Amino acid sequence: MGPGPSDVPPSVLNAMSQPLVGHLDPSFVQMMEEIKDMLRQVFLTENDMTFPISGTGSAGMEFCFVNLIEPGDEVIIGVNGVFGGRMSDVATRCGAKVTQVEAEWGCIIEPDQVAEALASVENPKLVAIVHAETSTGALTPIEEISKLAHEAGALLLLDVVTSLGGCPVRIDEWEVDAVYGGTQKCLSCPPGLSPVSLSDRAMESVKGRQGGVQSWYLDVNLLANYWGDGARVYHHTAPISMNYALHESLRLVLEEGLEKRWARHQANHERLKAGLDGLGLQLTAQEGHRLWQLNAVGVPDGADEAGIRTTLLNEYGIEVGAGLGPLQGKVWRVGLMGHSSSEENVDRFLAALKSLL
Amino acid sequence: MGPGPSDVPPSVLNAMSQPLVGHLDPSFVQMMEEIKDMLRQVFLTENDMTFPISGTGSAGMEFCFVNLIEPGDEVIIGVNGVFGGRMSDVATRCGAKVTQVEAEWGCIIEPDQVAEALASVENPKLVAIVHAETSTGALTPIEEISKLAHEAGALLLLDVVTSLGGCPVRIDEWEVDAVYGGTQKCLSCPPGLSPVSLSDRAMESVKGRQGGVQSWYLDVNLLANYWGDGARVYHHTAPISMNYALHESLRLVLEEGLEKRWARHQANHERLKAGLDGLGLQLTAQEGHRLWQLNAVGVPDGADEAGIRTTLLNEYGIEVGAGLGPLQGKVWRVGLMGHSSSEENVDRFLAALKSLL
Repeated sequence: MGPGPSDVPPSVLNAMSQPLVGHLDPSFVQMMEEIKDMLRQVFLTENDMTFPISGTGSAGMEFCFVNLIEPGDEVIIGVNGVFGGRMSDVATRCGAKVTQVEAEWGCIIEPDQVAEALASVENPKLVAIVHAETSTGALTPIEEISKLAHEAGALLLLDVVTSLGGCPVRIDEWEVDAVYGGTQKCLSCPPGLSPVSLSDRAMESVKGRQGGVQSWYLDVNLLANYWGDGARVYHHTAPISMNYALHESLRLVLEEGLEKRWARHQANHERLKAGLDGLGLQLTAQEGHRLWQLNAVGVPDGADEAGIRTTLLNEYGIEVGAGLGPLQGKVWRVGLMGHSSSEENVDRFLAALKSLL
Repeated sequence: MGPGPSDVPPSVLNAMSQPLVGHLDPSFVQMMEEIKDMLRQVFLTENDMTFPISGTGSAGMEFCFVNLIEPGDEVIIGVNGVFGGRMSDVATRCGAKVTQVEAEWGCIIEPDQVAEALASVENPKLVAIVHAETSTGALTPIEEISKLAHEAGALLLLDVVTSLGGCPVRIDEWEVDAVYGGTQKCLSCPPGLSPVSLSDRAMESVKGRQGGVQSWYLDVNLLANYWGDGARVYHHTAPISMNYALHESLRLVLEEGLEKRWARHQANHERLKAGLDGLGLQLTAQEGHRLWQLNAVGVPDGADEAGIRTTLLNEYGIEVGAGLGPLQGKVWRVGLMGHSSSEENVDRFLAALKSLL
């Protein structure tokens, strides 16, 4: 029940431990096609360029920036937690001129702030937003920000590492141009891959680059030759077992159905909220914009934040996350992600916490 | 029996499919320490900075270059197959001035060639060599090249993706400054991680950089804070299950013993060689420098290279690799790596090939 990795269903662990075939084996190529197809369904997109990067979510983040950004490009980044800060670091390493739009940790990025930032730069190339901030539990609405970005001629990049599979993520409807997720949150697959998707508009931007992509491992032009529909040109050796696991976890997501899965996450969040109310505890993220899958619970005055967290792990077998940055010592981060989002987990956590307070 | 991934022992698959703990869980941190310790034993090094990169072997390659190279640095790269070419591409993307030392595919890089290249540049920063060329089956001796590189004031970078665990790799004795491997060859772990090691001299070079590292995901300064002995600062979410698998595969390598494991690879290579002699077939890599774990078998005149390869897979359940680049259509690449290096596999392959020729 931490901020990820979430618990992994037995059938995913079982799929992962099947004997390996080669990364160019016809049966693996068939599986790649099915993974791409299921990822499109989960992202709610028809983007051709949809596949998993062979690294964790942060590699997906870097994939988006190295392919879309060239030195001197103006980039606007929402920073309301750890991962907006990380995006700024990655963009800067690509040579971007970064304008940060900051909000207090736990609050969302407001469209007005983005509009102001867009007006302040000459030729904005990209607006980058963290949809669900794992470090704070806040969910930033995207539709209005997307309109503003596109009106200004910029692309929209979205981090859905924690939102994908746990609450609505609508890539095509929201006109998101570049998106990266993680496998270890609401998809309940082990960490190790990062599903990404690029719109046709993003791919045109890649094709129009003046210079090359600074990363070989993450160069979409090379990856497209392996993951695309064509000749399957060898690029790197895909993590076969991780792809087995992702295939099964996506199958489970679609078997449950996106709407039902989102509703389950919402219901368990509300059950947790009600229980916390009963204990006199508060969720700290901005009201009306709280994540269902990651709940930042305010540590009450006088409670031993680290001690309770350690006791939860060692005596109750329940992992919760510590606060990061300005929230260090102030919150516990309680994940209800994917397979871990269950009434049983909520009730076990509440009972344990009650006995420790 | 292709060029990797090799077959994975059941206990490694079983370890990989154990339930997940968090990437900062004390039990996982303990496992990280054991992985670092076992990697040092397998690399035959005492380098502090020894750990697995959360990506495949090519990510390990990029890790070495992005950390050691700055724009304008002069780099000498041996190119005698696919992976030397890939190193040149990666180095160029880091802004290196690359001098290629070329040899015919299947032949080794000669020390004289390296000496000549070193003499031709002003201030060589790095010499990069592929130890075992998976694309050709040639093993380049390193000791003499290492001396030349260091005498010229350059660092030595070595690709041991295919050699590690299958034949002698002596990082400290050979004074290798930066090295990357893969998990899916002679360690017989699924693909997805790249063991790396940097010498103190390499780390001094990193500390003396003028500018930052262009990759966030692969920045050794950040990775050291997570994998190092200190505070375990969260960087990215480590691929937990892959690390379980690597832990068990390293345990098996050390249980067998490095010397015995190398001898097994040598014996099965010689068994294959004898059987091929009986069929009138040749190994195509330079005599005296043939890999034990990857055997490039010359396709005899008139034989249907692709047809036989497909029949081996579909009717005999044996995967072998196709030739790449100038060797396309001319060789089959037969892997005898790690768990797949067995008398039984050699005999099955020889019997199948005999019936098809």
